[in-house]
Amino acid sequence: MEGVVASVAYADGKRVGDVAIPDISEVLKKPDHFVWIGLHDPSPELLKQIKEEFGLHELAIEDAQAAHQRPKLEQYGDSIFVVLRPAIRAPGQEQVELGETHIFVGARYIVSIRHGATPSYGGVRTRCESTPALLAKGPGFVLYAIMDFVVDQYFPVIDALGDQLERLEDEIFSDDFDRQTVQRIYALKRNLVEVKRAVSPLVDVCNRLMRFDLPLIPDDTRPYFRDVYDHAIRINENVDTMRELLTGALEAHLSLTAVTQNDAMKKLAGWAAIIGVPTMVAGIYGMNFKFMPELEWRFGYPAVMAVMLGACGYLYYRFKRSGWL
Amino acid sequence: MEGVVASVAYADGKRVGDVAIPDISEVLKKPDHFVWIGLHDPSPELLKQIKEEFGLHELAIEDAQAAHQRPKLEQYGDSIFVVLRPAIRAPGQEQVELGETHIFVGARYIVSIRHGATPSYGGVRTRCESTPALLAKGPGFVLYAIMDFVVDQYFPVIDALGDQLERLEDEIFSDDFDRQTVQRIYALKRNLVEVKRAVSPLVDVCNRLMRFDLPLIPDDTRPYFRDVYDHAIRINENVDTMRELLTGALEAHLSLTAVTQNDAMKKLAGWAAIIGVPTMVAGIYGMNFKFMPELEWRFGYPAVMAVMLGACGYLYYRFKRSGWL
Amino acid sequence: MEGVVASVAYADGKRVGDVAIPDISEVLKKPDHFVWIGLHDPSPELLKQIKEEFGLHELAIEDAQAAHQRPKLEQYGDSIFVVLRPAIRAPGQEQVELGETHIFVGARYIVSIRHGATPSYGGVRTRCESTPALLAKGPGFVLYAIMDFVVDQYFPVIDALGDQLERLEDEIFSDDFDRQTVQRIYALKRNLVEVKRAVSPLVDVCNRLMRFDLPLIPDDTRPYFRDVYDHAIRINENVDTMRELLTGALEAHLSLTAVTQNDAMKKLAGWAAIIGVPTMVAGIYGMNFKFMPELEWRFGYPAVMAVMLGACGYLYYRFKRSGWL
Amino acid sequence: MEGVVASVAYADGKRVGDVAIPDISEVLKKPDHFVWIGLHDPSPELLKQIKEEFGLHELAIEDAQAAHQRPKLEQYGDSIFVVLRPAIRAPGQEQVELGETHIFVGARYIVSIRHGATPSYGGVRTRCESTPALLAKGPGFVLYAIMDFVVDQYFPVIDALGDQLERLEDEIFSDDFDRQTVQRIYALKRNLVEVKRAVSPLVDVCNRLMRFDLPLIPDDTRPYFRDVYDHAIRINENVDTMRELLTGALEAHLSLTAVTQNDAMKKLAGWAAIIGVPTMVAGIYGMNFKFMPELEWRFGYPAVMAVMLGACGYLYYRFKRSGWL
Amino acid sequence: MEGVVASVAYADGKRVGDVAIPDISEVLKKPDHFVWIGLHDPSPELLKQIKEEFGLHELAIEDAQAAHQRPKLEQYGDSIFVVLRPAIRAPGQEQVELGETHIFVGARYIVSIRHGATPSYGGVRTRCESTPALLAKGPGFVLYAIMDFVVDQYFPVIDALGDQLERLEDEIFSDDFDRQTVQRIYALKRNLVEVKRAVSPLVDVCNRLMRFDLPLIPDDTRPYFRDVYDHAIRINENVDTMRELLTGALEAHLSLTAVTQNDAMKKLAGWAAIIGVPTMVAGIYGMNFKFMPELEWRFGYPAVMAVMLGACGYLYYRFKRSGWL
Repeated sequence: MEGVVASVAYADGKRVGDVAIPDISEVLKKPDHFVWIGLHDPSPELLKQIKEEFGLHELAIEDAQAAHQRPKLEQYGDSIFVVLRPAIRAPGQEQVELGETHIFVGARYIVSIRHGATPSYGGVRTRCESTPALLAKGPGFVLYAIMDFVVDQYFPVIDALGDQLERLEDEIFSDDFDRQTVQRIYALKRNLVEVKRAVSPLVDVCNRLMRFDLPLIPDDTRPYFRDVYDHAIRINENVDTMRELLTGALEAHLSLTAVTQNDAMKKLAGWAAIIGVPTMVAGIYGMNFKFMPELEWRFGYPAVMAVMLGACGYLYYRFKRSGWL
Repeated sequence: MEGVVASVAYADGKRVGDVAIPDISEVLKKPDHFVWIGLHDPSPELLKQIKEEFGLHELAIEDAQAAHQRPKLEQYGDSIFVVLRPAIRAPGQEQVELGETHIFVGARYIVSIRHGATPSYGGVRTRCESTPALLAKGPGFVLYAIMDFVVDQYFPVIDALGDQLERLEDEIFSDDFDRQTVQRIYALKRNLVEVKRAVSPLVDVCNRLMRFDLPLIPDDTRPYFRDVYDHAIRINENVDTMRELLTGALEAHLSLTAVTQNDAMKKLAGWAAIIGVPTMVAGIYGMNFKFMPELEWRFGYPAVMAVMLGACGYLYYRFKRSGWL
Repeated sequence: MEGVVASVAYADGKRVGDVAIPDISEVLKKPDHFVWIGLHDPSPELLKQIKEEFGLHELAIEDAQAAHQRPKLEQYGDSIFVVLRPAIRAPGQEQVELGETHIFVGARYIVSIRHGATPSYGGVRTRCESTPALLAKGPGFVLYAIMDFVVDQYFPVIDALGDQLERLEDEIFSDDFDRQTVQRIYALKRNLVEVKRAVSPLVDVCNRLMRFDLPLIPDDTRPYFRDVYDHAIRINENVDTMRELLTGALEAHLSLTAVTQNDAMKKLAGWAAIIGVPTMVAGIYGMNFKFMPELEWRFGYPAVMAVMLGACGYLYYRFKRSGWL
Repeated sequence: MEGVVASVAYADGKRVGDVAIPDISEVLKKPDHFVWIGLHDPSPELLKQIKEEFGLHELAIEDAQAAHQRPKLEQYGDSIFVVLRPAIRAPGQEQVELGETHIFVGARYIVSIRHGATPSYGGVRTRCESTPALLAKGPGFVLYAIMDFVVDQYFPVIDALGDQLERLEDEIFSDDFDRQTVQRIYALKRNLVEVKRAVSPLVDVCNRLMRFDLPLIPDDTRPYFRDVYDHAIRINENVDTMRELLTGALEAHLSLTAVTQNDAMKKLAGWAAIIGVPTMVAGIYGMNFKFMPELEWRFGYPAVMAVMLGACGYLYYRFKRSGWL
Repeated sequence: MEGVVASVAYADGKRVGDVAIPDISEVLKKPDHFVWIGLHDPSPELLKQIKEEFGLHELAIEDAQAAHQRPKLEQYGDSIFVVLRPAIRAPGQEQVELGETHIFVGARYIVSIRHGATPSYGGVRTRCESTPALLAKGPGFVLYAIMDFVVDQYFPVIDALGDQLERLEDEIFSDDFDRQTVQRIYALKRNLVEVKRAVSPLVDVCNRLMRFDLPLIPDDTRPYFRDVYDHAIRINENVDTMRELLTGALEAHLSLTAVTQNDAMKKLAGWAAIIGVPTMVAGIYGMNFKFMPELEWRFGYPAVMAVMLGACGYLYYRFKRSGWL
């Protein structure tokens, strides 16, 4: 069916087989069975079917349709609705992209809905099926597996942003910076702000899952959610650290620009003096007064040149010593 | 009556008909009926009538009269008083305007009072009447419908502010900025601060409505208030993100101005040297000493010109290489 | 008596009559009576008398004597001690002044002590006496009336500060700023910080009064304290907003100063080049070489002048186009 | 004994007499007696003796030995251990010094240990002995008296820092600032940060003492600790205010420096033009072209001088009008 | 065995002897015995053995394998898992390095796993064995001893960072700063941010250990954890103080750079005027007008020279007086 990536029934941690959407109620009549339905950009009709099948709340379905949600966890009676925002970063590209995933979890079903460029959860399914003992814990464990996958995908993104920050630092302190540096600092800041917005509500989502008193989260899956929580906290801390360092880098950049300008100004002043003094002296001996005895002197010219050179040399020495040149 | 936009009785989610203000008590004697009164800039007398009809608290009525309140939720016995600040943004205008709405909600009535340029709630009424199943939940659902409408109106405002921010970023990094850029950054900041002040107390209002243990908020309307809460949080987050980015943009602007000045200073210094050196040399050979052998040389002039050109060329090359020109 | 502004007994919301301090115990023997004593800069002896009359705590009396307290609420057994800091702003003056008021409230008495330039509470008394139904609630209502009066006095102060901020913004963006602008920004910041210090503890005081479980605050006066609380929150928010905008204004000022300097620098560089080039050319033709063929040319002078004008014109055009002039 | 400043037994608020350390247990056998031991830089042996006498915890003794603690309150069974950091500011000196005091309080004893330059508590002892009614409350009241003394010593320090801040403000806005101003701003910041670190944990210590449910803090001493708490809050607020103003002052300083530089730059540019134009004109008429008709004119020289003066005058007028000169 | 540093059984606070990993279960059958196993970079197989021996949780073992955790405390049933990040600072090196240690604590065992450059816990073991009374408290006390050791190692690191900060302050205010200063400020900031990340979660870990209600933390070891908590707080506060001062230092640096530039600009302007004026005058008398009476004067040349010197002297005096030179 259009938009359905997979629809599989599981029992006792083992795959029972594919199920067509209309046959789900039939399957769920058997005890200990649950279904895991994976959707990708589903049509409104499909969503409506799913909604009726599992009795999902209208508002959650509206959210799942609309996308552009922030990560959150909402409880509707015995079922929960989770929104995640997986991060993807195309190699060679600086811009981080944030996808969106909606997950409905009930005691006997889990429905994951991917939007746009979100990566496929095929790997998660394979991994779950390879550990039947864990998969037997039911939809709660599948939820963990998806969240773990999503959170783990943040690490390479964070590392890439960290590398970018280090390159920017090198650029700033190697005195090789220009207008682009500032633009790159700002672009990195934007990326960090966006990743932060995607990750920081996750911490709260995991925290609540760790403490949830619902049959669909068995007690022994709690340490798993704590693990995801821990990762989310680490990513969060990393982003905060980078933001703080970036602010520091921008301040350092401003200070260095000021220092550079100081140096340029001092050089300008120094050389202006070294060029200005002989020009002034030459101007004086370029005057057309009738009676200027020096002009008649046999060695007037070399003497004046010597004076000029001496003045320049002295200025050069003075400026050099005080660090202006 | 002057100031009364609509005054309608509902029963079982269906419109029973218009009611004159004085007949309200009559209508409310029938079970399961409730009235929804919409006012616009009501006169003090009208408000007094309403107050007596429903037994509203004097202080809330004072607030409703005075306007210039911040969004809030106050409980008076079994009824509540809500203040909202809808945002409107005239197309083509940068300035966001904030209207004001006061809502009194009791078990059997809801009174909404619009002030100034606040948009009409006619659409909300139509939408409510089109879903009788929901309208049957009573005044609590109407309150939700109004809040949902007000909060949803923030999204286009936020989008417009976001566009403005992006235009400012382009302006800053395209090196096309001037005094106006700074003024626009500040104006956007002012807008954001004002929107923030209107939205951020809303989060708290929704949060309390979600948890309120009052008969006028039936249990099954809670997910609806959570939905509004969720939207308010998103708007809030958007505003915070924009404020942070705007601060970054202003810092970037300052850094870029400093870099630009550096560049100008270096260019100034470079060209000053390139013009200053030949001027100095020319000054020397403009001196009127009797005995200046070079002046007599046949090729003195071309030689000096060559020296000048050589010096200028060398300086030009040096400055170019070190990026000063 | 020196320092006693008024000392009046009330019963059932009606003024019974003035009471001399020593006769108070006599009056309080009658049921439902309470006294309201207004003092202004009382002498230590008077305070001692009051202390003994009502059994006030030594430490509170010390505070009332010393002034220079921060707004606070302290409970001593069944009575409370409140410190308020009313704001006054002389018309035409930029500086906000903060007075100080101490209030002792017990079940049967209220003692208000004004210090320094604090405005008189005569108006509060008149207003209370004009609403006997409310005054009958006892000293708790009088406390509300005084707090309401004090908090309402902040609004004109806040408005005046807001006007000042807007004038500063105009000054900054009209490019008409100078050293005084920075000083005025700083002075406004100082004022805001001081008003903030006076208002922000008030929020907490009102909050505690709203929740207090004391017989002297009857249940039905709670909405009144919530009203004062609401006003205090609004003033607080206003001050915070202004502080944030002021910070933004100072940053904008710095950015604009940098932009202005950039413009000046570019103008300087441009005109230096336009003056420098003809000076250099003139210098060259001012050299005294014997063999300079151009000097002999019939149209050498006009040609050189044309070259100079051309160069200047070209530079002017280039600088103009790139926005340096 | 070396390091013992005083060791006195009290009963019923009256001084019973000095007690040698080894005789303490003897004294404490009598009911209602308590001892107050004041130590100054005690030797490890003395501390060990004290420890054994009162059964103090090893870790607290280690802390008392080591000094360099932060203000804190620790409860060990029925006794408490308090660390305070009194502030001293030598007159005429800008640097604030922070001493250290450790206090052990049990039901029947109080041991105060001063380190380094901490002022003597002799005055506290005298004051306590002069109010037997209060001293009779036992060690808890003595603890209050010491804390009150320590906190009150902060006020002159705070006032002196406030004066320093005002002098700095005057310096900044009187345009009389230089490198030293920045250094002084930074030094004041350092002082404020250090005072803050000493005072801000005190607020928490007092808060906990106000709420402590220990026999050694009788109920009726609670208002006294609330008083100290109140003072600590006020000092804390003062420091925060000063830190905020100092930040504002530094920003104002930066802005003013930029404005000053702008003014200097504009002056430089203006005068450069006024000097540069006649220089250029003079250069032109200094050229050696054979055919320059102006040179032959009878009034060429005065005419050119008039042109020069006119140009300079015009420039001066233009620059003056636009505020550059 | 590869990776096992020590594996020792203790009973009643006394060392019973080394135990091979496979014999542990045998030893633990004896009452009151516990084992302390120290590992260093263990192989996955070794970890697996340990895991099976003590029934550790798979997720904790994964963490212990992977390293790169943040300090944390996790409870798995009756056992806990602690991650610490000891700091090491090679003498003469500015960069702080953070190692990593994982600790599993159960009622009868403690397993400490060091990673990378983390210092050996041999000293901790010796110290524990030298106080049998304390060691008899079991694995909880050993945990304290390790944490105390790790936290105490931060103090020299903090002191070194403090020295670095003071050297930077001296550099900034001695006017001896250059590009390297900014880079050093940034490097220190990076170090502080990293130390902060390692220490600040420690405060929470200690806080929870102080309150834990687990048999493996006996009541009388709580004051010990409070001691570690206190140290962690102090280190945290130190880092925060340094960060605040560093921010102030960077701002001061920026302000000083601006002041320096101002001074350079003023010097440049002053000397430019002093050189420019005689150049202009000389240019005037270098004009070739036929009729320039001054040129013919006998004392024209000395008179002009006097005028030039006078102008320069006057300018010098004026600039000196207004502080430009």
